Amino acid sequence: MNFIQIVDYVGTFAFAISGIRLASAKQFDWFGAYVVGFVTAIGGGTARDLLLDVTPFWMTQPSYLIITGLALIFVLISGKWLIRLSNTFFIFDTIGLGLFVVVGIEKSLEAGFPFWVAIVMGMITGSVGGITRDILINEEPLIFRKDIYALACVFGGIVFYFCTILHLNAEFTQFIAALSVIIMRVVAVKFHLGLPVLKGEN
Amino acid sequence: MNFIQIVDYVGTFAFAISGIRLASAKQFDWFGAYVVGFVTAIGGGTARDLLLDVTPFWMTQPSYLIITGLALIFVLISGKWLIRLSNTFFIFDTIGLGLFVVVGIEKSLEAGFPFWVAIVMGMITGSVGGITRDILINEEPLIFRKDIYALACVFGGIVFYFCTILHLNAEFTQFIAALSVIIMRVVAVKFHLGLPVLKGEN
Amino acid sequence: MNFIQIVDYVGTFAFAISGIRLASAKQFDWFGAYVVGFVTAIGGGTARDLLLDVTPFWMTQPSYLIITGLALIFVLISGKWLIRLSNTFFIFDTIGLGLFVVVGIEKSLEAGFPFWVAIVMGMITGSVGGITRDILINEEPLIFRKDIYALACVFGGIVFYFCTILHLNAEFTQFIAALSVIIMRVVAVKFHLGLPVLKGEN
Repeated sequence: MNFIQIVDYVGTFAFAISGIRLASAKQFDWFGAYVVGFVTAIGGGTARDLLLDVTPFWMTQPSYLIITGLALIFVLISGKWLIRLSNTFFIFDTIGLGLFVVVGIEKSLEAGFPFWVAIVMGMITGSVGGITRDILINEEPLIFRKDIYALACVFGGIVFYFCTILHLNAEFTQFIAALSVIIMRVVAVKFHLGLPVLKGEN
Repeated sequence: MNFIQIVDYVGTFAFAISGIRLASAKQFDWFGAYVVGFVTAIGGGTARDLLLDVTPFWMTQPSYLIITGLALIFVLISGKWLIRLSNTFFIFDTIGLGLFVVVGIEKSLEAGFPFWVAIVMGMITGSVGGITRDILINEEPLIFRKDIYALACVFGGIVFYFCTILHLNAEFTQFIAALSVIIMRVVAVKFHLGLPVLKGEN
Repeated sequence: MNFIQIVDYVGTFAFAISGIRLASAKQFDWFGAYVVGFVTAIGGGTARDLLLDVTPFWMTQPSYLIITGLALIFVLISGKWLIRLSNTFFIFDTIGLGLFVVVGIEKSLEAGFPFWVAIVMGMITGSVGGITRDILINEEPLIFRKDIYALACVFGGIVFYFCTILHLNAEFTQFIAALSVIIMRVVAVKFHLGLPVLKGEN
């Protein structure tokens, strides 16, 4: 198990927790919460793999089902105490996001798609899980309104692109791109930065 | 037309009815109700087939479109009288569920996936149709809160697995697995059994 | 760039505008509105391509991302003035719909599917974008309740079928089929025609 894999599992755990917590706020039962947690964790990568026409990643090894199970147990045990951990989870979640984006980009390039497709796939990998979670709990997807989330994914993709143009080392490129996503998201949340809202006609 | 196919069509009919009835409660027009009924009936198998990367089953023969049409006509004709049939539909629906789970498991194993994937696909085949129905009518998916539904699918999958380990006859395995789903669901509804609810922080 | 392509781009632009406008009514931020506009424009064709197991069309050329960007800029610039253009957009949107249906039918026939599948795919191409848009903004899909939309797609498909049986010229068939969709939709909206509503039991 290498470093990338550990970060991937940590990100999966954090994404699953976010799904389980929101499902619990809606009074879902244990199994429903598990399903929402799982879909949150694997939804983005699954959408990406279907679009790229490769076998969805979680169908090749049971780790993701198991990690979601651990996330459910963790939520059940920790109870109210979990709320105090919000900041910790925000960090895990954001690190996971950075990695998910990088994995999405790499998989798309390996499948032979051009860079602009890879950037879109990076964003899809990072954000479709959260969108599906919000649809399942019947809420408007948060990411369309709060903070800078999907845009941080795109930003990371663009950084990845420029690193590639500059022929930087592959590992370094991955690291810088993931870090860009993380920094942009942390800065946006810390300083309450957001995109302007489209003024509707109503 | 063999026995399996008849049960498959009966299950499709019952699933379509459930979609059409819920759409009618939301004042959808005839065509909208037809679409919701169709998606309820074929949604699970379609999700499974996309994940397994095989041609969605309903695209290989028009029977499923036709059965949904019959279901719509049936709802239109029967009117208020349909409510009294609720118990009958519950039985059809549950028998359909049992079969859908078994079909989902078999198709996944044939496609060369390991058993744990097949169990997940059995659950997806049985439950994604109802989840999509609830998303289309803009309600929280029922199965995450009421009775034991998705869990009955998983239980049937585990029974299927043990029958396979014991080298039981294929038809017998199918029968026992489908029956397990049906019994677990009937018992859960009859005795109002449900999973514990996750206590949310709100 | 031939005539078909121009119509395709105009339709994409009109579909994207409809997504962006509805997102703005829900106070989505610029990027959220862009995503909703994009999904509205490409959702139908993407669902079709996933079901047909071909590469989603928008992943082969960046035009659709760019056109959605132009649509966002257009909405930002035009402001309140856009409301007065509603009728113009209705025409663009409907012309786009007619073309999307024809493209959906042709792609399915090329992929070797029978005609009844092609008609369903024509409808999916024309209507899934709007359905996904409504799910993302957490509203009941409009097309299930208002005007004749999905049914116009099916009608166009049936006209396409009869033109094919009569061995009419391919371009002429496309034109007549698209025109049938457009006329049926315009007539339905102009005379407030709709399908009967299914009376629910509640």
